[in-house]
Amino acid sequence: MNIVFGDGPGVGSALVRSTRVRGVSFTGGPATGVQIRRDTAADIGKHVSLELGGKNPVLVFDDVDIPNAVSVAARAAFENSGQICLCGSRIYVHRRIYDNFMSAFVAYVEKNYRLGETMGPVASLQHYLKIRSYLLQARVESAQFHIGGIPSEEPDGYWVPPVILSGIDTNSPVIRDEIFGPVVTVTIFDTEDEAIALANDNVNGLAAIVMTNDIARMRRIGERIDAGLVWVNCWLVRELGTAFGGLKASGVGREGGAHSRDVFTNLRTLHVPSAW
Amino acid sequence: MNIVFGDGPGVGSALVRSTRVRGVSFTGGPATGVQIRRDTAADIGKHVSLELGGKNPVLVFDDVDIPNAVSVAARAAFENSGQICLCGSRIYVHRRIYDNFMSAFVAYVEKNYRLGETMGPVASLQHYLKIRSYLLQARVESAQFHIGGIPSEEPDGYWVPPVILSGIDTNSPVIRDEIFGPVVTVTIFDTEDEAIALANDNVNGLAAIVMTNDIARMRRIGERIDAGLVWVNCWLVRELGTAFGGLKASGVGREGGAHSRDVFTNLRTLHVPSAW
Amino acid sequence: MNIVFGDGPGVGSALVRSTRVRGVSFTGGPATGVQIRRDTAADIGKHVSLELGGKNPVLVFDDVDIPNAVSVAARAAFENSGQICLCGSRIYVHRRIYDNFMSAFVAYVEKNYRLGETMGPVASLQHYLKIRSYLLQARVESAQFHIGGIPSEEPDGYWVPPVILSGIDTNSPVIRDEIFGPVVTVTIFDTEDEAIALANDNVNGLAAIVMTNDIARMRRIGERIDAGLVWVNCWLVRELGTAFGGLKASGVGREGGAHSRDVFTNLRTLHVPSAW
Amino acid sequence: MNIVFGDGPGVGSALVRSTRVRGVSFTGGPATGVQIRRDTAADIGKHVSLELGGKNPVLVFDDVDIPNAVSVAARAAFENSGQICLCGSRIYVHRRIYDNFMSAFVAYVEKNYRLGETMGPVASLQHYLKIRSYLLQARVESAQFHIGGIPSEEPDGYWVPPVILSGIDTNSPVIRDEIFGPVVTVTIFDTEDEAIALANDNVNGLAAIVMTNDIARMRRIGERIDAGLVWVNCWLVRELGTAFGGLKASGVGREGGAHSRDVFTNLRTLHVPSAW
Repeated sequence: MNIVFGDGPGVGSALVRSTRVRGVSFTGGPATGVQIRRDTAADIGKHVSLELGGKNPVLVFDDVDIPNAVSVAARAAFENSGQICLCGSRIYVHRRIYDNFMSAFVAYVEKNYRLGETMGPVASLQHYLKIRSYLLQARVESAQFHIGGIPSEEPDGYWVPPVILSGIDTNSPVIRDEIFGPVVTVTIFDTEDEAIALANDNVNGLAAIVMTNDIARMRRIGERIDAGLVWVNCWLVRELGTAFGGLKASGVGREGGAHSRDVFTNLRTLHVPSAW
Repeated sequence: MNIVFGDGPGVGSALVRSTRVRGVSFTGGPATGVQIRRDTAADIGKHVSLELGGKNPVLVFDDVDIPNAVSVAARAAFENSGQICLCGSRIYVHRRIYDNFMSAFVAYVEKNYRLGETMGPVASLQHYLKIRSYLLQARVESAQFHIGGIPSEEPDGYWVPPVILSGIDTNSPVIRDEIFGPVVTVTIFDTEDEAIALANDNVNGLAAIVMTNDIARMRRIGERIDAGLVWVNCWLVRELGTAFGGLKASGVGREGGAHSRDVFTNLRTLHVPSAW
Repeated sequence: MNIVFGDGPGVGSALVRSTRVRGVSFTGGPATGVQIRRDTAADIGKHVSLELGGKNPVLVFDDVDIPNAVSVAARAAFENSGQICLCGSRIYVHRRIYDNFMSAFVAYVEKNYRLGETMGPVASLQHYLKIRSYLLQARVESAQFHIGGIPSEEPDGYWVPPVILSGIDTNSPVIRDEIFGPVVTVTIFDTEDEAIALANDNVNGLAAIVMTNDIARMRRIGERIDAGLVWVNCWLVRELGTAFGGLKASGVGREGGAHSRDVFTNLRTLHVPSAW
Repeated sequence: MNIVFGDGPGVGSALVRSTRVRGVSFTGGPATGVQIRRDTAADIGKHVSLELGGKNPVLVFDDVDIPNAVSVAARAAFENSGQICLCGSRIYVHRRIYDNFMSAFVAYVEKNYRLGETMGPVASLQHYLKIRSYLLQARVESAQFHIGGIPSEEPDGYWVPPVILSGIDTNSPVIRDEIFGPVVTVTIFDTEDEAIALANDNVNGLAAIVMTNDIARMRRIGERIDAGLVWVNCWLVRELGTAFGGLKASGVGREGGAHSRDVFTNLRTLHVPSAW
């Protein structure tokens, strides 16, 4: 095994383009993923498996136990300051329980996610400023900040507080782009069909969290939602033999257990006749 | 099901680029395959399975029964006037049996492949002229025509006779490009390693025909040859449940039986906890 | 294909014992299944797949929609007069909804299952008398007949009405044996653990019907219940590629889709070395 | 994990019959295997996987390299003094090479298998006497001892020399029973069909060794021979993911890799409807 350090445009691009590299398994941003696809378009035999971005929806139906829904949603939103591709950053809540959910959610996050105690800073100044720009955009759009606000332009450490937003338009970059920070939006829905449509209204399709206790709904949503990974009443659970990978812009290929064979091997078929 | 007629740049390209088309299974030329990969590079979730060109080697070892090797090689070279992507158009023969093989091969083809009787014309004037240009190139390179020759520039029907060539340089387009016509080259080798190296010295990796009666060699070559489909002492045999598809520039994806699922479906994993 | 008619002791036994018969796939009663196992114990290479009896439990939890639970339970109990190995003949109902369930169940069955209209006779006089003997036994045990009663000893046609019983002891043959007729017992439970214990307290393990709308409970029961087939809020649904077969005394082997290969084929492994 | 020591009639039988033991994976003799099947015939849900005896044929065709065939056959016959269920104890040689094979085989064994140097004693006095009784039987049948002879009735250590026999009748227990010692028979055949018939003329079907360099013959024999494991020009090679287990009296069940799941797990199918 050989580990090579370097940045994308230099080392990464050279590795990806090399004809001696017969396979690429990449986890990272969608722009890089597309660039890898372009760079390898003519090298058809090079296997490319991509695990790219997520803007994963959290659907909270009105039959849930609210405290449980709140704790799963909070963890999915703020674990590692939201810097996990599998984070749930778009919460959709049924109208009937919206008020109860929101007040419980805000209270839970205020109590459990505290900068410097249970939450660390984000990864870099560049990333800090990117997250900040999305929060400025939210303010421009008159979004409501239920908790958190715009962090300082000249930070003393890259500390971004947990932010819970509502009133975001479905076309806003705040709800469309992967922010990869401790920023979550909350939106109301009225019907299951509307919830699925809102969840699927995104270029990504990595994961989805479905909070419901209705078995038939679980199966309906499991069949209709654009997500390679669906978590029902839980988040970030994984059995390593199961397939891992996203739909739509979130990636191509499946890894995990026997699924990885398609990525890392070439399958040949050899025919032997019984006579000639 | 909807069948749409049209040419590639118009209908094909529009279909491939449409965001409503979620998967493309294409069989055709490598340039089109690469274009499809470029056209779909940014649409990561679109499944693309490609079955592209072949310049498939036929390895004839010195332990074979020559009449059987001749008949398999002839069929692989001239079936449908060589217009099958799976045709074997590069024959490599062990030096010890080269003379015997070549004379038997020429005699067999003269007897069994006759224009207007057992062979039809090629598909179009454009294709006729393309094949003719490769034969002109062979003459420029002073290749030996054991059978066949240059067809007329102004043909009365697109009749191309079977052509057996030797003396082709390993860098010649005649032995590198897929001609997709009734043209086969014959080259001498001395060792198994050399035979594998010659066979693999091509951008394509669709199929290979291995004529030997040595079981250990069969396995060694089966593991080392760049071909998705390996036929041992036979050609064009297929059990429909087995994986079909090429290596290197010959394609990506495997179809056939359960293998087709990766091409035509999206695999989701749904996690249900036993408690919360 | 050859179809041979005959009874078990004669034709069946001869077929099963014949050394020319290399596999037996049997659907029938447990005594015959055990006899086949004894008859073939020394013929180790004979494949034996058995689909035997069921005394399948129906668990009705207190979170269900009672009308739906009633209609599924009624169909599972009385379809084909209960003469299907997959019928649900032991209903267990949570104490909190027992009264409501029972009154709705009785009313539904009275309305929908009528001899000569929606229900036919049972298969034979012998079978009629066997079912009748279990009903006599229920009377001896002072069971409550919520609907139905003891049919005539000298019947004019083998008509057995739908029978709903309660007050059956857990050790009674009425609740232990497969009656294979339109007879169902209803028993109260208080906890999930008790429900599972009651369901599993039987030598059979073919199928189970679980009526609940609790997703975590569904998974817990799915993992703990002794049944090869678990139907959640439904009955007799089958996708033909899925595995079919029972646990415990209900059978051995799995059929359906690729699973059938283990029953009907012998798997050989052939090793070829790459050199010697 | 719990390891319990004891003999078969006591501890083994009690374990096998216990209703708390839900699966038995047994490797041992055929009589014990049949007894386990009888003991568990009524406990249908108890999984039983058996790896029993072998009287494995070695087919030596006339296209082989004799020195290689001799060394594989010798190792298959005499490794661990023949006390491996996978040993090849019935050699069948094509008439054309019989004399050459036999003289080379005898010379090779004389040189390489020497008691106290490269071969140890057999496992017990009981086993020593059992092997000796088969050799006495061979003498009674006027078999030819090409090497080895009858060991002493009152041994000083359980040393059995390598024995190569010919002239054994196809009905002799010497060629029918698993001796499990350093005793091998050599028999002539004339045709492939005859070789297969001789190989298959045994109640066992664990393994077979096929010495040939003919690819088509390899496939034909691979399809027709009664053996779960077929070694072509080699012996005792195993990739642990492949299926291990015998045909006919040699066992039931397949272990190794994913195949073991059928032995050690119960497969349940759980149906969830999308609506009700």
